[in-house]
Parts: sequence; structure tokens; C-alpha cells
Amino acid sequence: MAQNVYDDAAFFDAYAGLPRSIDGLDAAPEWPALRAMLPPLGDLRVLDLGCGYGWFSRWAVDAGAASVLGVDVSEKMLDRAIADTDDERITYRRADLDRVVFDAGSSAEERFDLVYSSLTLHYLTDLDRLFGEVASTMATGDRFVYSVEHPIFTAPSSPAFVSDAVGHATWPLDQYFLRGERVTDWLAPGVVKHHRTIGDHVAALHGAGFAVTDLVEWCPSPSDLAEHPDWATELDRPMFLLLAATRR
Amino acid sequence: MAQNVYDDAAFFDAYAGLPRSIDGLDAAPEWPALRAMLPPLGDLRVLDLGCGYGWFSRWAVDAGAASVLGVDVSEKMLDRAIADTDDERITYRRADLDRVVFDAGSSAEERFDLVYSSLTLHYLTDLDRLFGEVASTMATGDRFVYSVEHPIFTAPSSPAFVSDAVGHATWPLDQYFLRGERVTDWLAPGVVKHHRTIGDHVAALHGAGFAVTDLVEWCPSPSDLAEHPDWATELDRPMFLLLAATRR
Repeated sequence: MAQNVYDDAAFFDAYAGLPRSIDGLDAAPEWPALRAMLPPLGDLRVLDLGCGYGWFSRWAVDAGAASVLGVDVSEKMLDRAIADTDDERITYRRADLDRVVFDAGSSAEERFDLVYSSLTLHYLTDLDRLFGEVASTMATGDRFVYSVEHPIFTAPSSPAFVSDAVGHATWPLDQYFLRGERVTDWLAPGVVKHHRTIGDHVAALHGAGFAVTDLVEWCPSPSDLAEHPDWATELDRPMFLLLAATRR
Repeated sequence: MAQNVYDDAAFFDAYAGLPRSIDGLDAAPEWPALRAMLPPLGDLRVLDLGCGYGWFSRWAVDAGAASVLGVDVSEKMLDRAIADTDDERITYRRADLDRVVFDAGSSAEERFDLVYSSLTLHYLTDLDRLFGEVASTMATGDRFVYSVEHPIFTAPSSPAFVSDAVGHATWPLDQYFLRGERVTDWLAPGVVKHHRTIGDHVAALHGAGFAVTDLVEWCPSPSDLAEHPDWATELDRPMFLLLAATRR
């Protein structure tokens, strides 16, 4: 099962202070690239895996979705999502994505036309199982769009830039092919992520019955850099991997 | 246009001493993974981009291909390919892949069922142009299978492992999103490669009318490591990227 660090009080409080927690999608630098990979949302039944505060779920119904099911493991996140949401088209469910089961056969509410996930899947231990579940809820031609921390970002034993004697920074990549747990101190000590390679993501999608249609490694645009000069180091190694796939 | 370093005498002589130059495909560690991405070759018309000594071209006709056109920019490589080849199903042509043009409309000999390339495309300046040419020679369902140096391998300003005070080695990744020339000293000084990202490869394939069907980041197997313990560092960062795509 996945660690539920978002219900850790210290982590939750720190997360609540991030720009993307305060201002939502528009404060997430990778959101424009991820949004560009989405189909038109009109009348779609949407599944939001790792919905968090519900920013995307609310955006989706505003963009015309017929319904959204937001799933998250964190009770604290869902409490705030529910408090912030006033739309009967949105339902929230608490579940560990390493264990969640959908029953598309017996319930129309468990069938989806678009499955979305933002920066969640790198917490999971078993992508193949979840992708199989997700595929079972979708029909041919339906879309699965998600972002994760990029494998180059998750791989290292010491995931922080290092500077040489003249101040030149490099990203100390190692153990790229060593899949599995990475424990980092991000917002709180002992956050557990699960590293896998780009090839693993593509293989998991293909294995579950998807065709990959887009693979984007996010980097800041010139206007991003003009506004945030400190993001220049994001040109040295990718932080986010964005994938779009179609159900075959 | 691409640099023709293989016709540099010092480079050519050093390249001739590599295991893969002496013993062919079976001495290339990534060959089993690349071979696994190929369709059955029976009766296929094959295009081999960057054919070098012709190892793959000869293997392809042995595996049943109807014909193979091997293309390379290096006169020295082609001279040896021709000297080593005795099969009328194989034709060699000298051309710079940054400029080569095929005319599938007027000649059946310029239409291909399988396009293959091994460790060549990272020398090219313009992948989009070549992929468009390649796509024009193929019909729906035909396959394009290639390997390149992995973008993580080509990106760094100093592409060599660095060891810290306790001897732990890391790969100093930087300028991942800075596309373009990388000048390295490999076999000879001043070898010019062209760095692009994984996302760029996928976008170039999609843009030219291909659907990506496989993306493999090569790493040594346990038996490779038992035979070559010094390859352990290949687990720290990928050296080869292998892609397979289908003409839409």
C-alpha cells in the first residue's frame, strides 16, 4: 500500500502553504502543459486519481464534464475538498490507489471517459495493478492523462543539485535502474516515493491496453523564466513527466 | 548536415577496434533488446539507416528479408560493408541522413516495410526532416525501430561519472533541455553529436505519422553483469534509448 503522508499533520500544514495549494491549478507550473493534453471535457465522466483538495475536479465540471469522481487516500485532503466543493456532479471517495477497485460491470457510475492524475502515481507501489483497474473502467478511444515526478528527479540517492568548485550545479544521477522506494525529506521527513523508469511507465500503459499518444518532459518556458529567474536550474534536469494515452 | 567523423582516419581505426566492429551484432550489448522489437523479417523490404559495416543488413537477409538498402555517410564504412557482403539482395548507398531523399512515388525500390537504425540518429541535426522522409516510404502498419544514445547520456556538459570523497559515483546531469550540439572526445577529439530529449523523440515520431509502440531504456541484465562486472555503473544512468513505432 501507499504511504498516506498527506494525513501527517506537519506534512499537511506545510503542503497547505504551497502556491498550488493556495491558488490551485494556475499556480502549478506544469498545468498548462497537462491541460493541453486533455480532450474537450464536454459531457465526459471523469475520474480524478489523487484529487487532493479537488482543484481539478472542480475545474473539470466548470469545463463541462458530466460528472467527476475524485479519489484520494488522505482524509484531511478530502475534508477540505468537500468543504470547498458545492457541485452535485462531483463525488469524493477515500481509497488507497494501491488497493482501489472499480466495478464497471455492475455500475454505470464506475465507468469513465477520461482518467486524470496529477503528481500522485509516484507514491504507488504497483502501477500495473492500478492501470489494469483504470483500463477496466474505460472504452476504446477514452483518454488517460497524468503527471508524475520525472524518473530523473526521483532516481538519485541524494536528490539535490551539487555545485562544483566554480559554482557549476549538476544533478547527481545514480541508481536510475534501481526501482522501488525512495525516502526523501520534502515538507516532512520520511516521505516515501516509488521510483520507476520512463520505460516502465510506457510498458505499464501498453501492458494495460493503452496506446501512448503524448510524452512531455515539462520545462519552464521563456516567460516562466522571465517571471521566475530562479527556475533556470529546471533546464538542467526534468522535474515532471506528463503522459497521455488512449484506451485501445 | 551531420559530421562525417567515421571517415576521419584516427576515428575509423579506433572504431574498428571496438568489440561490435570485430564481432558484430552479438558483441553489442543492446542488440538482444533491439532485436526483440523487430517484427518477423520474412519478405520485408528493409531500410538500414547508418548501416556502417553492414552487420544488420546481412543479418536481415539471413532472417528472411526480401531486400535491404543500407545507407551511410561514411565512405570507409561502406567500402568495408561492400567488401564483407556477398548478397544481391543488399544494396548500399552513400548519403548524409540529414539530406537523404527517397522517392517512394516513382520507385518500388524506395518503399520499405521496416526501417531500422542503430546508434546513428544522435549524429543528425534534423530528426523531423528525416522522419518525414522515412514515413513517406512506408505504408500503414509498417515498423520503424531504432536505437540512439540516451538523452541522459548525451545531455551533460561533462559526460563522465564523477566520484565523491568516499568513491561514490554519480552522473553529473545538466542542460537536459538545451538541445543541440555536444562535442565529445570519443575515439577521436571533436566528435559532434546532437542532443534532444526523450519527449523530442516521441514528438518527432508522432509528428511524422508514427504511433510509438515501445520505449526501452537499455540496462544490463543479471547475466550481462555476471559476465561484465564493470558494467554495474550502467545501472546508474541509461546509455541507450530504443524506440519502436508503427506507421499510422
